[in-house]
Amino acid sequence: MLELINQTGDINKIPENRLDELAAEIRRYMVDVISENGGHLASSLGTVELTLALHRVYDLPKDKIIWDVGHQTYTHKILTGRRESFRTIRKEGGLSGFPRRNESEADSFDTGHSSTSVSAGLGYVKAAEILKKDYHVVSVIGDGALTGGLAFEALNNAARLKTNYVVVLNDNEMSISKNVGGISDYLDRIRTSENYTSLKMSVSAGLESIPGIGTKMVNAIRKTKGSIKQIVIPGMFFEDMGFTYLGPVDGHNIRQLIKVFTEARSFPGPVFVHVLTEKGKGYAPASKNPVKFHGISAAKLTEDPSPEDHGETFSSAFSSALISAAREDRTIAAVTAAMKEGTGLRRFASLYPERFFDVGIAEGHAVTFAAGLALGGLKPVVAVYSSFLQRGFDQLLMDVCLQNLPVVFAIDRAGFVGEDGKTHQGTFDLSYLSMMPNMTVMAPKNGQELDRMLRFAVKNNGPTAIRYSKGKVPPSVQKMETSPIEFGRAEILHKGSKIMIWAVGDMVGTGYETCMKLKEKGYDPTLVNVRFIKPFDTELLESLAKDHEYLMVLEENVENGGFGSLMLGAISKKELKVRTDICGAGDGFVSHGSVEQQRKRCGLDPVLLAGRAERRLKGME
Amino acid sequence: MLELINQTGDINKIPENRLDELAAEIRRYMVDVISENGGHLASSLGTVELTLALHRVYDLPKDKIIWDVGHQTYTHKILTGRRESFRTIRKEGGLSGFPRRNESEADSFDTGHSSTSVSAGLGYVKAAEILKKDYHVVSVIGDGALTGGLAFEALNNAARLKTNYVVVLNDNEMSISKNVGGISDYLDRIRTSENYTSLKMSVSAGLESIPGIGTKMVNAIRKTKGSIKQIVIPGMFFEDMGFTYLGPVDGHNIRQLIKVFTEARSFPGPVFVHVLTEKGKGYAPASKNPVKFHGISAAKLTEDPSPEDHGETFSSAFSSALISAAREDRTIAAVTAAMKEGTGLRRFASLYPERFFDVGIAEGHAVTFAAGLALGGLKPVVAVYSSFLQRGFDQLLMDVCLQNLPVVFAIDRAGFVGEDGKTHQGTFDLSYLSMMPNMTVMAPKNGQELDRMLRFAVKNNGPTAIRYSKGKVPPSVQKMETSPIEFGRAEILHKGSKIMIWAVGDMVGTGYETCMKLKEKGYDPTLVNVRFIKPFDTELLESLAKDHEYLMVLEENVENGGFGSLMLGAISKKELKVRTDICGAGDGFVSHGSVEQQRKRCGLDPVLLAGRAERRLKGME
Repeated sequence: MLELINQTGDINKIPENRLDELAAEIRRYMVDVISENGGHLASSLGTVELTLALHRVYDLPKDKIIWDVGHQTYTHKILTGRRESFRTIRKEGGLSGFPRRNESEADSFDTGHSSTSVSAGLGYVKAAEILKKDYHVVSVIGDGALTGGLAFEALNNAARLKTNYVVVLNDNEMSISKNVGGISDYLDRIRTSENYTSLKMSVSAGLESIPGIGTKMVNAIRKTKGSIKQIVIPGMFFEDMGFTYLGPVDGHNIRQLIKVFTEARSFPGPVFVHVLTEKGKGYAPASKNPVKFHGISAAKLTEDPSPEDHGETFSSAFSSALISAAREDRTIAAVTAAMKEGTGLRRFASLYPERFFDVGIAEGHAVTFAAGLALGGLKPVVAVYSSFLQRGFDQLLMDVCLQNLPVVFAIDRAGFVGEDGKTHQGTFDLSYLSMMPNMTVMAPKNGQELDRMLRFAVKNNGPTAIRYSKGKVPPSVQKMETSPIEFGRAEILHKGSKIMIWAVGDMVGTGYETCMKLKEKGYDPTLVNVRFIKPFDTELLESLAKDHEYLMVLEENVENGGFGSLMLGAISKKELKVRTDICGAGDGFVSHGSVEQQRKRCGLDPVLLAGRAERRLKGME
Repeated sequence: MLELINQTGDINKIPENRLDELAAEIRRYMVDVISENGGHLASSLGTVELTLALHRVYDLPKDKIIWDVGHQTYTHKILTGRRESFRTIRKEGGLSGFPRRNESEADSFDTGHSSTSVSAGLGYVKAAEILKKDYHVVSVIGDGALTGGLAFEALNNAARLKTNYVVVLNDNEMSISKNVGGISDYLDRIRTSENYTSLKMSVSAGLESIPGIGTKMVNAIRKTKGSIKQIVIPGMFFEDMGFTYLGPVDGHNIRQLIKVFTEARSFPGPVFVHVLTEKGKGYAPASKNPVKFHGISAAKLTEDPSPEDHGETFSSAFSSALISAAREDRTIAAVTAAMKEGTGLRRFASLYPERFFDVGIAEGHAVTFAAGLALGGLKPVVAVYSSFLQRGFDQLLMDVCLQNLPVVFAIDRAGFVGEDGKTHQGTFDLSYLSMMPNMTVMAPKNGQELDRMLRFAVKNNGPTAIRYSKGKVPPSVQKMETSPIEFGRAEILHKGSKIMIWAVGDMVGTGYETCMKLKEKGYDPTLVNVRFIKPFDTELLESLAKDHEYLMVLEENVENGGFGSLMLGAISKKELKVRTDICGAGDGFVSHGSVEQQRKRCGLDPVLLAGRAERRLKGME
């Protein structure tokens, strides 16, 4: 079957009664490839039938399907001319793990972050209305993403549509970890209520056997507007939001899905189709433990997001450091936004359940909630990924920094993140944190230093961020001793002359190796572990500027507003004479590949850096 | 009555049957003061009884009331030891127009931006649980703020509370402008349904006459859990979110409010109290036209937020420019987030209703929605205030910049905003916009230039921001000619020597006056209108650096990551020899006062600047 699928639309070559076979083949292929490349296996296994049905009912690329988050789109990629290239997914130069418009016309929105699909879908709908185009728009959103405020803002705005627009809720009872909150409870009630069972039966019996009955059902739902509907029809919550609710529907029954989508497509207004899927469907290990298989790294399905089980990673160091701090100080609480596993909070959560808060996919809320916790007398530590914390930018600035509250931000996945690519890079945090008044920003070189920084942070009387990388601590600095942390002070790791390298966080490893390369060339560079990005050690800078002529800054952050910018500010104010080279992520989005490849692309490689320093010193560039 | 109110708790000295008199006195006092000082009259007039009732039922400052947005807190301020100082509200050194913890222990959260109150309230609740404190927490949120996704995220997280927590919906059918969306329609149905009328009667008759019946009502609601409740009890939407819903209640009947709050306070879980209020209540002009009286400036209740009616302001120039551009190009659409009046979109909305989108208080959605519009072939212009666009930071970066979409951002209230103070300052946008790859950032010196920039922006093939100030264009530059806009090029307004001043946006006026002062001192400074903050005119900088020794940058933006930072980056890269002084908003939050006072505080004053330049040139600092 799969070999018949070469370009968008080829799914129509397959008879409907053989689509289940196709689904099985796609699953096998997906497991094969992701075992090699790593990726979001469970999410994509859960949406095979859903995707096949959508592709059958809608006319791509004319019609627009917007996949929320986008890690569930492997089937979609395979169906849209990327069957072969799917083998390259998440590799340098290969397919992205997320929808990308530059890969295919069938990708209509580049995603990565949660809860954007309804907003984007509404934009397409309104543009089509105004420009009098006749394509259909479907947004596919997970029940986890539905808890993001952005999705709610968009649903609220869809209410008064007079044209067709379909939101498909892919309800697998999970975001990344187990879902939380009132909406989740509500969906749970729908799933388990008699309404569900009876409607499910009527959908499967009714829709499957009698042609045309689907239309009748939709009409019946519309006609019974009135209070009685609330008893017999589930989904009033979405009806109250202005949507016509259809469902719940079995998300692994292709024929049922096709019927429901066909009905939904013809409705002159906003429709909400509630589809029940099983994350990891069809692959026993992933189905049994979808959290474990949410994002997996390449090495033959070894697990990625639970750093606590591994050797020395920054996340595992954070995990231990927080637990030990929380043991001593009973006012320490942890907050995360559906990143319990990834940020290493699993152990904390089981040891101190009453002090652990997973707010679901709701980063803005996580930040303001933490502000409230701090005002109530606790010491909240908010553990999130760097790129997701972007969602809490205004809350950080207005609710935490403006009030100068003692909230600690443990920012994981800072700098390059590798295979997840552009949407997940943590290359903006130094900029967006440093611009905020009252904010202290730190970065540790290794796990021991992260531990000390966390202890410092929970005692610091104001907003404090610690940012660190995904994955292993660089071997060259893993065992390096850590001197006591002093507010605003850097750490000199080696005092040399002429060249000084100021390295942020795990760039200390790269800085160390660059020094080795420069030593081979006969130089003796000074190596500074920055530690405090803001406020940084301007006194040390002043003193070193006296006997160094060249300054190299190493940071995994964009050029504008990062640590290098702050240094230039100080150099200008103090009128220091030192030639400065800021080596970082430039002014761009860094696409997927391994972290090592990404660093090389940006020139953050010991050999390249040593060469650059030498050429600058010799006045060759 | 009012004279009895000297400190928090004094409201208990007033007999319940005389609270209406107190309310009337407070209204008169408020109208008096706000006529002089300017302020949010309509919102605060609408919440007099609501505030009196809350203060009667709750024990402040022990209990915590969190006021969403915070511009409705004038009565609260008057009741909490600030009756006399209320006369200084919004003035330099006087009371803030918003809750501020440093003003009173009775203020429990500093607000200004919308939809934070439930998150912050939950934080207090959880902290009290963990630390075993026994205070009560109430969040008061408006129906406009309820459409913000942050509020939804928080409501979703409140669902499983086992302790008392009360959310009061202050439903006046308005955000700043008329409300939009499914939730608004839903509230409308509750307001007008028979359920409402009958429940209202039972509340007013029942609660008022028979003591103890309130408890019975709450119990009855709890007992009838089951489908039948959905027919007879409004508010199922909030019940579905996990709240116990009480209401709707007449928000101007103090005794009714006291009864309902007393009931709500005793409930062991999250309670949602729906209160109907009238914005502008008790003052005929404000009640008749609450939009007009939302935020009013001082001059005896002349109106502030409708720039279209006035002389040359940047907002009015934007208004005309957009209409004229939209007349020529039918693919131009306008998007705003409850800022139709303030951003000058009223005329556009009435001329081109089908191309106008007010998404309500939902900035994140506004941005991603605009990304969708752009992908659908339109040219969206998103008009928002600088500080509120902070809510769309991640959406700007990920949904617009990453996809390099042609969305125009017309950013009003950039730089200092005067009396609204810290939460409303537009002093971060140059930093948060400049760090974003693909983003073009511009600032016009006057209205004519804004017009040209907008025409440039809608033709620019990528994300483009134009940021400009609130209020009048500085007189010195109002009539200044505008040369054609060229991508990335600055405009030299005067070519002199030694000193060069690079001024951003309406700082060109200040720069011009600084030049005049410096001329008096015998200097002949060069004046550059920056125009493009990103990418900026590095060629011009290089060429001017040759015959200028001192560079002064003028920008109403924080120091880190702003235009000055970008210039230092270029100066370092090109190894230019020029002493640089970045004059801006420093690294802090600038509190309320007039714009002129705020500029002076930051040293952005022609006399101060000229002195500074001279001292630097003479090597005196």
